[in-house]
Amino acid sequence: LGPYTPSVHIGWDTGIQPAAKQEGNVAFASQSGGHASTLLRAGRGFYYTMGLSFGNQIDVNCLEVLEYYAADPKTEVIGLYLEDTGSAKGSDFFKTLREITPKKPVIIWKGGQTEIGARAAASHTGAMSGSLKIWRSMTKQAGGIFTEHSEEFWDIIHLLSILVPYKKLRPCKNLGLIIPGGGDSVEATDMFSRFGFNVPVLTKETQDKISALVPPVNTSVKNPVDLGATGGFDRVFLSSIKFVAEDPNIDIVIHYQPIDWISGAEIQFGATGYAGTAARAIGRLAKRLEKPLVQVMPILKLDRNIAEIYPKFMEILRQNGVPYFSSRKRLAIALTHLNEYVQFLKVRKKL
Amino acid sequence: LGPYTPSVHIGWDTGIQPAAKQEGNVAFASQSGGHASTLLRAGRGFYYTMGLSFGNQIDVNCLEVLEYYAADPKTEVIGLYLEDTGSAKGSDFFKTLREITPKKPVIIWKGGQTEIGARAAASHTGAMSGSLKIWRSMTKQAGGIFTEHSEEFWDIIHLLSILVPYKKLRPCKNLGLIIPGGGDSVEATDMFSRFGFNVPVLTKETQDKISALVPPVNTSVKNPVDLGATGGFDRVFLSSIKFVAEDPNIDIVIHYQPIDWISGAEIQFGATGYAGTAARAIGRLAKRLEKPLVQVMPILKLDRNIAEIYPKFMEILRQNGVPYFSSRKRLAIALTHLNEYVQFLKVRKKL
Repeated sequence: LGPYTPSVHIGWDTGIQPAAKQEGNVAFASQSGGHASTLLRAGRGFYYTMGLSFGNQIDVNCLEVLEYYAADPKTEVIGLYLEDTGSAKGSDFFKTLREITPKKPVIIWKGGQTEIGARAAASHTGAMSGSLKIWRSMTKQAGGIFTEHSEEFWDIIHLLSILVPYKKLRPCKNLGLIIPGGGDSVEATDMFSRFGFNVPVLTKETQDKISALVPPVNTSVKNPVDLGATGGFDRVFLSSIKFVAEDPNIDIVIHYQPIDWISGAEIQFGATGYAGTAARAIGRLAKRLEKPLVQVMPILKLDRNIAEIYPKFMEILRQNGVPYFSSRKRLAIALTHLNEYVQFLKVRKKL
Repeated sequence: LGPYTPSVHIGWDTGIQPAAKQEGNVAFASQSGGHASTLLRAGRGFYYTMGLSFGNQIDVNCLEVLEYYAADPKTEVIGLYLEDTGSAKGSDFFKTLREITPKKPVIIWKGGQTEIGARAAASHTGAMSGSLKIWRSMTKQAGGIFTEHSEEFWDIIHLLSILVPYKKLRPCKNLGLIIPGGGDSVEATDMFSRFGFNVPVLTKETQDKISALVPPVNTSVKNPVDLGATGGFDRVFLSSIKFVAEDPNIDIVIHYQPIDWISGAEIQFGATGYAGTAARAIGRLAKRLEKPLVQVMPILKLDRNIAEIYPKFMEILRQNGVPYFSSRKRLAIALTHLNEYVQFLKVRKKL
């Protein structure tokens, strides 16, 4: 498919949906034209400086592309889908990778990770995939982020493409969870704990501040913060986010809310534009916080109104420095990658 | 929240969206009213005989409910969200579970699985959660299906609620993958292989039949079957599904196609109603196949047209015995549960 560069209007028509013309801070290269066009049309909450679909890499290869992207001042995050290193020597590629990762995150998604996946890759690009173990350990040693499949690849690119420009790269081990509902609070706590995160009890002071906002029954202010049905009120969730972010035990605030809690207000009460107002309020608050705020917002039942409201809501969040996820599990995986990268930067004294 | 029984018009208004009035074959009980109402409004591709939100289970408990659901002739699948066994004795619950699972699948989602999740559960229902290890091993020994979170819980209920009435409970280890695109073929193969599935090479005969349908470049007929751009043509993917299902090496056929390949035809070419026609054709074919057919259909970019088309497409598939998933990873997890349950039935000589 060749190159994609929105700033000089070199685009692709994927035959399905035209690629975004908006400029961003992510550069990508892909050995699969399909994955490249999916990246462009999937609307994954990030935009590009440039991109390249380079097939079997017989001429232009991943090493040259990596060096080029590293030198581009507008590129802040690099994402590569590779089945092998093409005409580049593997050892050269990983040597260059190690020089670049302390400056810019490089996310690698390796296709042909398993024996039969490698067979599929061989029939796709002719790749001699090499051992997954070697790829994974070489990538990690070089400070790269190693992902296993598309959603994981998109998710960590999305997260970094926001946290890097907003200067919010920091360890995110201690989570402040704000969730309307007891069952959802238990599920989120179970999920993040399984991935090794802490959900520390908030200070007495923080608990008292939140207690003043919510009724005493069917809520909990310890962490996870269960706002109960009042979690639908913007003043309650905005204040809670602020109080939790100010708590010294907390590294990052995660606010969970299904989109129909927001879209319902627009539809049932005719509060046209409410979703946009709420998104801008979350964004304004996030900009004032030193710590990252992430919105987790699943679509539990798809309808036309939600299809209208959801993408706009998410785009306002993105523009205001708030990463968003549709599932807790996908966020847990992305935060795990983030923490590994932050740890690498600390060891290399780049943070 | 109390009971929910669509057949006698006992429903809930969750305050957000009214619960479905349609009858189905799944009975559920939940210690979380939030999870119960999410189950009802989330449109997860299954419907209910009845349901119950029973809070801390001080009066009605999970043992009584399980016995009641087991005796109901219309209930074919049982799903329970539990934080503890309430007023029932744990040993009695698992003893009853062991008697029921050879007849009906019982899916258990345990809240409070981790130490801090248990703390959240204690503040939610007052549950003394007990050890996760004990819950997991007791459930598995009793032939129950143990899930870790909401999506996993919904997904295996969806899969079983279709495969049980269509009498397609069988081992699904050897997958036939039909996918337009090389990168997507590699990704799917990697994903399912990591979960221990096989993607066996198709017989020469099957390969020849598919070769006759597709161009010789940018395609592969071995398995994964990469139909390339011709994967968007209904005659090509329908015939390929049929040929792969007839291959003796294959247990189950998985057809991958993003929804915009279908919705694009409606929008770009004005082929109004095409999606419905395609869904019905897939359904008619599936009914003639002895083996299960599963559709994997992600939404890569949400818009109003897709919001209109997607739920209808999926409902036609469901009514015709075709389970559907939005992600390969979620399908891999659901199929893993399915195979464990089928193995249990075989050992107990119920299959």
